[in-house]
Amino acid sequence: MTRTHARVGPRAARARFRAGSGGPTAGLAPGHTQANLIAVPADWAYDMLLFCQRNPKACPVLDVTDAGEWTTHLAPGADLRTDLPRYRVWEHGELVDEPTDVSGHWRPDLVTFLIGCSFTFEAALAAAGVPIRHIEQGRNVPMYVTERRCRPAGRLHGRMVVSMRPVPQDRIATAIHETALYPACHGGPVHCGDPAALGIDDLARPDFGDAVTVGRDEIPVFWACGVTPQAAVMASRPPFALTHAPGQMFLTDARDEHYRVA
Amino acid sequence: MTRTHARVGPRAARARFRAGSGGPTAGLAPGHTQANLIAVPADWAYDMLLFCQRNPKACPVLDVTDAGEWTTHLAPGADLRTDLPRYRVWEHGELVDEPTDVSGHWRPDLVTFLIGCSFTFEAALAAAGVPIRHIEQGRNVPMYVTERRCRPAGRLHGRMVVSMRPVPQDRIATAIHETALYPACHGGPVHCGDPAALGIDDLARPDFGDAVTVGRDEIPVFWACGVTPQAAVMASRPPFALTHAPGQMFLTDARDEHYRVA
Repeated sequence: MTRTHARVGPRAARARFRAGSGGPTAGLAPGHTQANLIAVPADWAYDMLLFCQRNPKACPVLDVTDAGEWTTHLAPGADLRTDLPRYRVWEHGELVDEPTDVSGHWRPDLVTFLIGCSFTFEAALAAAGVPIRHIEQGRNVPMYVTERRCRPAGRLHGRMVVSMRPVPQDRIATAIHETALYPACHGGPVHCGDPAALGIDDLARPDFGDAVTVGRDEIPVFWACGVTPQAAVMASRPPFALTHAPGQMFLTDARDEHYRVA
Repeated sequence: MTRTHARVGPRAARARFRAGSGGPTAGLAPGHTQANLIAVPADWAYDMLLFCQRNPKACPVLDVTDAGEWTTHLAPGADLRTDLPRYRVWEHGELVDEPTDVSGHWRPDLVTFLIGCSFTFEAALAAAGVPIRHIEQGRNVPMYVTERRCRPAGRLHGRMVVSMRPVPQDRIATAIHETALYPACHGGPVHCGDPAALGIDDLARPDFGDAVTVGRDEIPVFWACGVTPQAAVMASRPPFALTHAPGQMFLTDARDEHYRVA
């Protein structure tokens, strides 16, 4: 599906997702910013916003709705309840459903956070000669829960999640520089090299997404990931939350360049 | 005092301010990040944090305390109630006091926000050949309330405040590039050239700080300013707020490079 979808814009892609189509969004609507989604009851919104502020590498906030709203200025006409490929529904930290539409789960007190996603800078990485392995292999990006603790905020705590891309050794410097220019999309990597330094035992067994091949001349490079708030939900057990399914993001109308600082 | 203070580090400068010394902080403790301060009752903290998120050029948040706390991880040992050169005390949007110590005004429900300051990137600007006119002239940086409306958040609304630095025409590109690398300190400018485009009638009459000389070959360049939350306080009239006095910032122990993205 990637090959077909890559040629459509974000609006058309959202329409397909609204009609029930799913799947990872890496490589879709290239040039347009993708976003993680997490919605929590208003009673938890301050804790979530503060958690994001205190962990800005993992949780750069692109937009926050008013309670009950399902629209965003990042994509006029979009419906945040239906326009993602797949969602996750959480009760007291437990995953209870994984639907393609959360209209039936919606509550009028939900505050929705859109958080920057590293898929946004993949076009810049590719242009700099970095292969995007998960797209090459038709897989979801591999994501891992690290042993790094986030700064807690109110009732929210948890560990940082990272995404991994193998980078050829002669492209490491470029990959770091290019991604650092997108601080609202996680910025530069948090670690290059030995996964054990992050407490990751086995690259072949990601916590979310799919494993990808790491070549002999490549080094695994880890970027903070917007699934981190989901890990905080799992650890902190708010009574209710909605999120995107990992790798199945919200496609905004914003251009990548909007979030490139220089 | 600038000449003497420039050679001391942030800890020693804070000790002087704690002892009652005042004055603008541009050029002090060079290499160390400076911050705006605003403290509001916990009941207003979500609105303020959301206002900052929705206006990230003007209000990049560096840290948020828990209610009643007067410490920050950006400067271990510092006391946010005493260690700024001068404060402003606001009641229902009216300025009621401008002391050098707010211990007597402190409330256990205050949540304090530290917000990035453009003084932070002045060392990088100077290194790139841009004269820092307000330091040259021994004045406070000129700041202006523009006609640009901020995105409102809950009960908070107001207009964007900017600081102005005259930049030689052949240094404009460098000035934009260098400052864009500090998004947590307002990043690149919001406008270069005609002040009227921002609704500023007369550069010689700033709303805060002092006017500075603009040379014949120089263009006025405007950066979003962390006094913007004060303008929101004036416009939105929360029952109580504490802020720094414009130009008289909190000196953190963080190094400027920490906030430079590339």
